[in-house]
Amino acid sequence: MKELLFGTAYYDEYMPCERLDKDVEMMKKAGINVVRIAESTWSTCEPQEGAFDFTHVERVMDVMEQAGISVIIGTPTYAVPTWMVKSYPDVIATTVNGRGLYGARQIMDITHPVYRYYAERVIRELMKHTAHKKCVIGYQIDNETKYYGTAGNNVQERFVKYIRHKFHDDLDAMNTEFGLDYWSNRINAWEDFPDVRGTVNGSLGAEFEKFQRTLVDEFLGWQADIVNEYRRKDQFLTHNFDFEWRGYSFGVQPDVNHYQASKCLTVAGADIYHPSQDGLTGTEIAFGGDMTRSLKQDNYLVLETEAQGFPGWTPYKGQLRLQAYSHIASGANSVMYWHWHSIHNSFETYWKGLLSHDFEENETYREACVIGKEFREIGSHLVNLKKKNKTAILVSNEALTALKWFGIEASAAGPGNTWYNDVVRWLYDALYDMNVECDFIWPESDNLDQYQLILVPALYAAPDELLKKLDRYVKNGGSMVATFKTAFANENLKVNYDVQPHILKDCLGVRYHQFTFPKNVGLAGRITDHEHDTEAKVFMELLISEGAEVMASYEHYNWGQYAAVTKNHYGNGTAYYIGCMTAQGVLENLLTDALKNAGIPSLSEKKSPLIVRQGINDFGKNVYFYFNYSAEKQVVTHEFSDSTDLLTKEEVRTGDTISIPAWGVKILEG
Amino acid sequence: MKELLFGTAYYDEYMPCERLDKDVEMMKKAGINVVRIAESTWSTCEPQEGAFDFTHVERVMDVMEQAGISVIIGTPTYAVPTWMVKSYPDVIATTVNGRGLYGARQIMDITHPVYRYYAERVIRELMKHTAHKKCVIGYQIDNETKYYGTAGNNVQERFVKYIRHKFHDDLDAMNTEFGLDYWSNRINAWEDFPDVRGTVNGSLGAEFEKFQRTLVDEFLGWQADIVNEYRRKDQFLTHNFDFEWRGYSFGVQPDVNHYQASKCLTVAGADIYHPSQDGLTGTEIAFGGDMTRSLKQDNYLVLETEAQGFPGWTPYKGQLRLQAYSHIASGANSVMYWHWHSIHNSFETYWKGLLSHDFEENETYREACVIGKEFREIGSHLVNLKKKNKTAILVSNEALTALKWFGIEASAAGPGNTWYNDVVRWLYDALYDMNVECDFIWPESDNLDQYQLILVPALYAAPDELLKKLDRYVKNGGSMVATFKTAFANENLKVNYDVQPHILKDCLGVRYHQFTFPKNVGLAGRITDHEHDTEAKVFMELLISEGAEVMASYEHYNWGQYAAVTKNHYGNGTAYYIGCMTAQGVLENLLTDALKNAGIPSLSEKKSPLIVRQGINDFGKNVYFYFNYSAEKQVVTHEFSDSTDLLTKEEVRTGDTISIPAWGVKILEG
Amino acid sequence: MKELLFGTAYYDEYMPCERLDKDVEMMKKAGINVVRIAESTWSTCEPQEGAFDFTHVERVMDVMEQAGISVIIGTPTYAVPTWMVKSYPDVIATTVNGRGLYGARQIMDITHPVYRYYAERVIRELMKHTAHKKCVIGYQIDNETKYYGTAGNNVQERFVKYIRHKFHDDLDAMNTEFGLDYWSNRINAWEDFPDVRGTVNGSLGAEFEKFQRTLVDEFLGWQADIVNEYRRKDQFLTHNFDFEWRGYSFGVQPDVNHYQASKCLTVAGADIYHPSQDGLTGTEIAFGGDMTRSLKQDNYLVLETEAQGFPGWTPYKGQLRLQAYSHIASGANSVMYWHWHSIHNSFETYWKGLLSHDFEENETYREACVIGKEFREIGSHLVNLKKKNKTAILVSNEALTALKWFGIEASAAGPGNTWYNDVVRWLYDALYDMNVECDFIWPESDNLDQYQLILVPALYAAPDELLKKLDRYVKNGGSMVATFKTAFANENLKVNYDVQPHILKDCLGVRYHQFTFPKNVGLAGRITDHEHDTEAKVFMELLISEGAEVMASYEHYNWGQYAAVTKNHYGNGTAYYIGCMTAQGVLENLLTDALKNAGIPSLSEKKSPLIVRQGINDFGKNVYFYFNYSAEKQVVTHEFSDSTDLLTKEEVRTGDTISIPAWGVKILEG
Repeated sequence: MKELLFGTAYYDEYMPCERLDKDVEMMKKAGINVVRIAESTWSTCEPQEGAFDFTHVERVMDVMEQAGISVIIGTPTYAVPTWMVKSYPDVIATTVNGRGLYGARQIMDITHPVYRYYAERVIRELMKHTAHKKCVIGYQIDNETKYYGTAGNNVQERFVKYIRHKFHDDLDAMNTEFGLDYWSNRINAWEDFPDVRGTVNGSLGAEFEKFQRTLVDEFLGWQADIVNEYRRKDQFLTHNFDFEWRGYSFGVQPDVNHYQASKCLTVAGADIYHPSQDGLTGTEIAFGGDMTRSLKQDNYLVLETEAQGFPGWTPYKGQLRLQAYSHIASGANSVMYWHWHSIHNSFETYWKGLLSHDFEENETYREACVIGKEFREIGSHLVNLKKKNKTAILVSNEALTALKWFGIEASAAGPGNTWYNDVVRWLYDALYDMNVECDFIWPESDNLDQYQLILVPALYAAPDELLKKLDRYVKNGGSMVATFKTAFANENLKVNYDVQPHILKDCLGVRYHQFTFPKNVGLAGRITDHEHDTEAKVFMELLISEGAEVMASYEHYNWGQYAAVTKNHYGNGTAYYIGCMTAQGVLENLLTDALKNAGIPSLSEKKSPLIVRQGINDFGKNVYFYFNYSAEKQVVTHEFSDSTDLLTKEEVRTGDTISIPAWGVKILEG
Repeated sequence: MKELLFGTAYYDEYMPCERLDKDVEMMKKAGINVVRIAESTWSTCEPQEGAFDFTHVERVMDVMEQAGISVIIGTPTYAVPTWMVKSYPDVIATTVNGRGLYGARQIMDITHPVYRYYAERVIRELMKHTAHKKCVIGYQIDNETKYYGTAGNNVQERFVKYIRHKFHDDLDAMNTEFGLDYWSNRINAWEDFPDVRGTVNGSLGAEFEKFQRTLVDEFLGWQADIVNEYRRKDQFLTHNFDFEWRGYSFGVQPDVNHYQASKCLTVAGADIYHPSQDGLTGTEIAFGGDMTRSLKQDNYLVLETEAQGFPGWTPYKGQLRLQAYSHIASGANSVMYWHWHSIHNSFETYWKGLLSHDFEENETYREACVIGKEFREIGSHLVNLKKKNKTAILVSNEALTALKWFGIEASAAGPGNTWYNDVVRWLYDALYDMNVECDFIWPESDNLDQYQLILVPALYAAPDELLKKLDRYVKNGGSMVATFKTAFANENLKVNYDVQPHILKDCLGVRYHQFTFPKNVGLAGRITDHEHDTEAKVFMELLISEGAEVMASYEHYNWGQYAAVTKNHYGNGTAYYIGCMTAQGVLENLLTDALKNAGIPSLSEKKSPLIVRQGINDFGKNVYFYFNYSAEKQVVTHEFSDSTDLLTKEEVRTGDTISIPAWGVKILEG
Repeated sequence: MKELLFGTAYYDEYMPCERLDKDVEMMKKAGINVVRIAESTWSTCEPQEGAFDFTHVERVMDVMEQAGISVIIGTPTYAVPTWMVKSYPDVIATTVNGRGLYGARQIMDITHPVYRYYAERVIRELMKHTAHKKCVIGYQIDNETKYYGTAGNNVQERFVKYIRHKFHDDLDAMNTEFGLDYWSNRINAWEDFPDVRGTVNGSLGAEFEKFQRTLVDEFLGWQADIVNEYRRKDQFLTHNFDFEWRGYSFGVQPDVNHYQASKCLTVAGADIYHPSQDGLTGTEIAFGGDMTRSLKQDNYLVLETEAQGFPGWTPYKGQLRLQAYSHIASGANSVMYWHWHSIHNSFETYWKGLLSHDFEENETYREACVIGKEFREIGSHLVNLKKKNKTAILVSNEALTALKWFGIEASAAGPGNTWYNDVVRWLYDALYDMNVECDFIWPESDNLDQYQLILVPALYAAPDELLKKLDRYVKNGGSMVATFKTAFANENLKVNYDVQPHILKDCLGVRYHQFTFPKNVGLAGRITDHEHDTEAKVFMELLISEGAEVMASYEHYNWGQYAAVTKNHYGNGTAYYIGCMTAQGVLENLLTDALKNAGIPSLSEKKSPLIVRQGINDFGKNVYFYFNYSAEKQVVTHEFSDSTDLLTKEEVRTGDTISIPAWGVKILEG
């Protein structure tokens, strides 16, 4: 790309009145240079089966092309039209709750031939109407695709075939791996395979969810193949991935393996939503950005993020601009709002766009105008920003699913409150707050050696090969920080039956035979101090050092003999293990040691809310971002080489003091 | 009416032993002069299809007639007999949860021809057995009728016809108004109309609920027509309306449009249940009374209220009497308990009547004896009490339903915790506590000009004509207090797309483009003071004055530029706007200004728990009620004309000090 | 029995690798002399319909027999194999939620002929393979049997027959007793009987649950008959009963009438799970033990209890041993852990056995080795321990179910938070903490006269005969402590319609007509003091003494005239009544009076955490247990006859001071 994309989703279809020319005028004023259209408008494009009407798409493309605004076309397939469901009710996914009712988006069986038949036809028609247009710079296939719990007979029959293949038709192997003898669940003939929706066997249940995730890969690949028949070489192909949703983009998406699903794309894309106002920290922008950039180890698109967002997110002055540069600082090549105008009806009426329902200028829109102007001015210095991170976090859909079945705080009796993504975010957020940038890697990744430090949160379910890969990584000189629950079970959620932590025992230099939940248990050792909360939290493994240095032990009359945090030199590397959850302060002390040990400096002595990010631009120059994620002015010393403030053109020399106003931004190139 | 009705529901059918003569004896001792019978006893009246047995009804009428106790006959149709459901399971309403099981009351499809066929027959039989009886003074059709979520195919097909009619068969008009293009919900052929139970479109969903409310109107009208064929001119026709239930009668009934449904009645009736003991304030008695009185702008019947009620409600000494006079003070012509005896089995065993299960005298019964005696003595001065209120609150089922779909605190992502009725009660309770009596009006009302002040809580969904009516009302000299969320969307829940607050912008003299949820936001201005909580609560619109006086602004570093409460002179009137929820103290300061501006005095300088109510009796005299809603003696100055204490016959002159004991009552005529 | 059984459940079927010889070696080291096998392994024993494979059972029996370890065989019927459900989906119980999906245990219709047919066949096959084996000392039929909500048509049709029988085909009697006229629920022809799953009538609903409990009795009796055809005289027959589960064994089992269901057994058995670590009090061990011992008034088996248990239960040092002796002190002849090894897959992966998943020795296993050694040494002094308790608590499934329907705190409007078992435990726990041992009795019991004091918690639903039995018991010289809600309704949950407390009015010397929930209500009288919380809690009856001594009155301006706790001399006995719930301190003061009055001493002046238990062993000697349920050393005076410490052989004389370490045990014989 040559310039930063700054834009919005635009829905001509939803307009309560004629707005197109006026909207384009306001877009131009705001510096908007791209819109995403057509996504989720199937019932408008194909009002009746086989009757197509691309009026809205065509008129928007025409006007945008004339205005010099690029267009991304989204295939409309993530919400199905009424006529399809009326004729073929089976198109609605049958889930554990039975077959649903028409109404919401994302409720269909993405494997269903009826759905596929109609989806293919509308995509082909849409491609025919759009691929030749100059303004169309790329395609987004579907939107936030997941498997929507689809678990009807057809899907379950496919699953049985999948599992027969996995176990080479060996029932006994399956029964043993999944432990199906328990509670008489053993399956002694393939035709006895029970309705998997009722299973209480986490191995079988998690395998089914893994299978369901492959349906997403297959579906996106299938769409990509269709689009690829039509799109021009210069048109990119992307998808709008999203994250575990906790009222905002929180963590690894449970229902999609982003790593696999992104293979069919030319560029990764995502939506990132986050708390705002006093809750704005930039963490989710960085987290989602780091994860999406890592998918293809390249720049990515922010296809959606909040403008005004929910009523509780109406941004304070400066925040929209701060957010925009934070996306860019993570390597995004676009900042696109969802959406241009606030929708006047239905489910997302209060998910507000750049414009309110009144289409008038407002404070948020006016701040977008500033961003658009600045992007135009300095965008060429910010586009295609490259990272050379030395730290990575290993995330795993399998571990996530496993800990959904088995919990962390939880016993078999019920679900707990701390989940896989809490552990991921516990590590990520500490790095972020310490101004250490990182990448993400997956079990499938083979680029471990490019990192000096790998963090491994709660890798509960892992094949031996993966653990051996980590072992080798450390032996060969890498540093690793692994947490409780790592290496506990194999990829089939069968708990390993040798001494824990299984293959990593030597590498980590610890073993344990028992664990419990901490109640009034403290931590003491060289990574604790009087300033920080030293409580052991959530879960505690009763570690026994087998050569590792004990960095912290438990403080408790019955558990005092056990280690909580250890550090072990192994081969040419170092491996840390954290047997319990801790307050962030204790974790930061540990990470400080690990980063120093791995030779990775923080980008600043200062911590959050002063955030520093770095990248290398198309001119081969370093770009330094100083973000103030607070309402109070922040002062920091510029510790990098002499630089130029890209916006003010002022010179900033090494050692100079920089002052950043509330929710402010400083961008230096040097 | 000539006398106050004092009575109970009576169920001879439920008696565990022969009690009739003994009960009548105890009723006479208590001064009870009316009972309501037959309601909900279908399975006893018609034990098998077509086999009728009115033994219980007839023997009770006979004994009551002999004892000089009047009888109200309730049609038994709100609970269906087993034989009907066994033969015709479809009679049970199909709701969003599918078809229910037999068991509870109020579970049938009130539109179902089978139900209608049998209901009509049993009503006609009951009428034949009762209409000629002298003791029968009136009829109650059905009981607490609602639509019970009925949404089966038959109901949905009727709904499609309704909506075709509403939009004159114009699909495009419907799609546009409801915004159905969103998420591909567009309906392009009537036969594609999807199962509305699954809709996520609030416009469509709210319209369906509005349609369901019309089923109640139609059903009650249908019953009224049948009863009218038989009842004598001197026999009234009523219905027992109830309110939004939050463990007690809280607010506007979501599932019934009382205004429409009451048209077929000759007198409005309701049940009113409320907290007791230390939680007794009289608010619900006044609220339910004011609302029911306003339906036909006439006196009304309290057909049910608590005697002992729930175990947590067992009244303190004096409370039953205080409650009785509070009903009368609102214009009720009856106080009827639910019910005479506590039921020995089933769902309402712990909803206790005047008598406990032991049929013995108890403290509550003994207090009823006092009330009965006093009613007999002074009832002629209290019956048919008339009000001339100058204040009214505009309530709307449409706004209520809309805010159920869209929330106040909530975003589209989920339901919030503050609802329409919270806003209604916020206003109402302040008036009540300030000793200002009021009426209710509805969007359909055309008597606005009889009021000097109209309060408009959160009128979220309103047709333009209604807003224009309010605009004219102010322009012509009226005063109005409107709150946040008013005028935001049209009657189809489509957000207005001009500047907010839409048509009322000029009238209110404000505009806004953005809103948010207040977090640590204060209020400052001439209606705030140091005594009261000045926090902005729940929701805040960022108001910009366009000529209005700013009575309070937000105190917050980012929102300080915006107004929170405004006052605008418009035409010959004045319009206030409250952009956020506040503590009651701030609201009272605002209302004090508005009441003064409108020339409406409070009935007392004192506030709750000293409550003053006023009316004009059949002798054309003023009746003044002083209620002490507390356990501490209250003292107040009589500021009205010289009067006589109706019970003690003592003279009370203007300026005299009146002392009211704990949970006590003073009634003056002057 | 000749020796204490010390053992575990053992599942060769679940092993991830060959472990049998190694496990037996570790068992022998731990002193384990019994294992329970085969339970819940149907799909392994009968992998396909009619194809049996008892390899696992036989090889385990062989190895155990050789090792001198006894075996208990569990019939495998509480979890059904996939092939059965695939062919006969109706085998899955239809409940109020419809028919379930295959997956969990305990989901079948235990009345279903298909299930019965296959269950009988697999039991017979299993018996043929095991009954002749010398090592097999007994059988457990099924496991934790309940009725699993089974309520399909077949079950409901059987219920109608049951109810016709109960009411001698007299519909009118049923309608009257159940109060079905209410809400038109009256049933006027048997063929009209509605689906009982929807009923809101607590009398009908509770009767259905009572009927469902009889299905458990019948099912266990049926299994017992089959097993009895095969088992040797020296082989016992037991069942593993469990208790109301609140994350641990809490109270009376709602779904089984243990008293009836245990009739077909030769020895009672149960599982007992309880909090651990700082939450370990011994209460549940004593409660479950006292209840199970009382079933057949004989020693019983602890067939399951926790080893490591849930992660939050990993025992502190000493706790496993303390628990083991606590079971024995209650009269258990066995302590068997669930289970030997922690399971590597599925639902109970985190319900940990003696061994962790790694099969290594761990702290818990090592403590088991100590227990095993001690049991071997002194077990002959502890086995068959007999009790001669003078105190009993009357518990009732009918009262429990009734208070589930009607609540205690609750009104008819919804369920409350205090339930029957809370009242039971309130009384039991006070006795336990005061070191008073007790038995349990049931409505069916006829051994009341063997007790000097009977406690009657909330006997809400009771037939007159039972109340008369209690009345006679007191009249004849017994002492009784009854609580609120006792005698309120008859066995059909019909509230008694004479003055409360009905038949017990004279015996208790009180009456009441009203009740309420206490809000800011205190208690004052001779059983209150300044040390203890004197709040009236949960529910309060407004008692009026009719001759009884008032031990405490309510402190409240409106309720001050009413009594709260009373004591009445009646005939030769004494009856106490508690009209409200209280803090334990007030209850203990009352019980101190009642125990003294009944001539029952505590086993110690000290209270919990110092627990004393007593029994008579096979040598006719008294055995005294001193348990320290705390982390602090406890000191107590030995007030019994001169004794010998069974473990250390030290002499302990009357008056000697005994010191018990943290979580420690002292066992004296004298």
